[in-house]
Amino acid sequence: MTNEAAFIAAMRVLASHPGARGLADDCAILEFGGETLVLTHDMMVAGTHFLRGQDPADVAWKLVASNISDLAAKGAEPLGVLLGYQLGSGDARFADGLGAALAHYGAPLLGGDTVGGSGGRRALGLTAIGRATHRPVPSRAGARAGDGVWITGALGGAMIGLEALQSGDDGAGSAAYRRPVARLVEGIALAPQVTAMMDVSDGLLLDALRMARASGAAIAIDSAAIPLACPDSRRDEALRWGDDYELLFTLPEGTLPVIDASRIGTVRDALQGTVLLDGLPLDPAAGLGYEHG
Amino acid sequence: MTNEAAFIAAMRVLASHPGARGLADDCAILEFGGETLVLTHDMMVAGTHFLRGQDPADVAWKLVASNISDLAAKGAEPLGVLLGYQLGSGDARFADGLGAALAHYGAPLLGGDTVGGSGGRRALGLTAIGRATHRPVPSRAGARAGDGVWITGALGGAMIGLEALQSGDDGAGSAAYRRPVARLVEGIALAPQVTAMMDVSDGLLLDALRMARASGAAIAIDSAAIPLACPDSRRDEALRWGDDYELLFTLPEGTLPVIDASRIGTVRDALQGTVLLDGLPLDPAAGLGYEHG
Repeated sequence: MTNEAAFIAAMRVLASHPGARGLADDCAILEFGGETLVLTHDMMVAGTHFLRGQDPADVAWKLVASNISDLAAKGAEPLGVLLGYQLGSGDARFADGLGAALAHYGAPLLGGDTVGGSGGRRALGLTAIGRATHRPVPSRAGARAGDGVWITGALGGAMIGLEALQSGDDGAGSAAYRRPVARLVEGIALAPQVTAMMDVSDGLLLDALRMARASGAAIAIDSAAIPLACPDSRRDEALRWGDDYELLFTLPEGTLPVIDASRIGTVRDALQGTVLLDGLPLDPAAGLGYEHG
Repeated sequence: MTNEAAFIAAMRVLASHPGARGLADDCAILEFGGETLVLTHDMMVAGTHFLRGQDPADVAWKLVASNISDLAAKGAEPLGVLLGYQLGSGDARFADGLGAALAHYGAPLLGGDTVGGSGGRRALGLTAIGRATHRPVPSRAGARAGDGVWITGALGGAMIGLEALQSGDDGAGSAAYRRPVARLVEGIALAPQVTAMMDVSDGLLLDALRMARASGAAIAIDSAAIPLACPDSRRDEALRWGDDYELLFTLPEGTLPVIDASRIGTVRDALQGTVLLDGLPLDPAAGLGYEHG
């Protein structure tokens, strides 16, 4: 077991509160005062989650979008955020991007902490607090055999955008990587319909595997049905690439989503806890997506 | 203006929501579902907030205590925490200390994020979520001329404890530094009584200055009245040392606190926004306490 896997296993032992959902969902869920809070905290580290030297305004935008995407996957509307910020170069640009992203989602900055800079891999954290618009709050664990498997938008855009940025294009060509947009409106609209929902920030196949395991079902995906935002020749890569922030969800057979989305597969009851790609079970050890390390 | 001051000024512009309290309080306050949420996020960085090489179990304990202390200062009971963790050496020890601290305060782990290690100054973050037990929630801004100024416990213990730890004592002699205890019970008991309350994590004089500025009043402190957990010869240092996690609060003249505490001064209306130590106004530029940097 890696250090990270061992640490997360230790955290699971501590996270016995039902609202923690076994640390196996996008967010924690907390009943409070007759309503339901939805809580998430994501970190980003220089060199892993963003490029060293990347425009700090884009880093701030992505930090907000990645957390709001977790709220979106639970159908929650944002109430506000707390920022944990390690000072570095471009702090004023970071503040600009943070302001733009928070304004985009209507999420106020409520508080946080600022600490000294890092000689090494600078770490940034954001906590997003939301209000569930539908209860029960959608989880990853609700996919049932026979459900349709759906996805919003298209995959591969962040992959193309990163390559464009690495080639010096810091404009429209790299926007999908630099300025991802969380599917907040879509998540809220879908919450009453879905049997399971999550975001696909770490890559479709890896995240689908998580849904399959949480649900005790198999997720069978038809790769040709997946809309792409990259050349068709790169389809296999796009299914394994992170940072697209689309929503993966399941609906009862015969139900159509209330927003634009694409049917990409079906939930099966054989081979529970696996992903079937074009009928073949995937090997989880084969690198299905982006494992944060 | 330092980079940090400029960044915090930019954050204040974004934090226009009333619940952010202008980023000038221990916590954010959010009305939700007919109750009141109390939210805080504190970070700790290796080499600044803890010693490189310090037992990770103690680091985890302090991370929890420092956040719970913020809840205590608002009279809030903890509902849970979200952890932002950067992997490093001693992850299993960190998990042990985290579990011990969360059990001590009855605060469940609800979620968070784990990211790769840092080559430099590792950063850890914790978000604590609490429920206000009394409304209005005590703020730093309520001190009024004529109020008594009070403090729980004694100061200087963390200073002595750090020195003991640096000398190799990782037992009882350094416990005040390694394993601070947030005044959660006291804060909840005091919340209905106080006109203002905050914790003194950055040193009494600096934190009293913050209360004076937030309240638009002067805080006059009688240094001889301050209980010490260190030799009397080090009184001046103890007033400027952080990490003691006591509560500083004000009560209407004639009111006695419901818990053990010491009266150390009086709120004045002359020289608003200053701290008077034994009758003399302090120079804020003279190093009143621990400024995180």
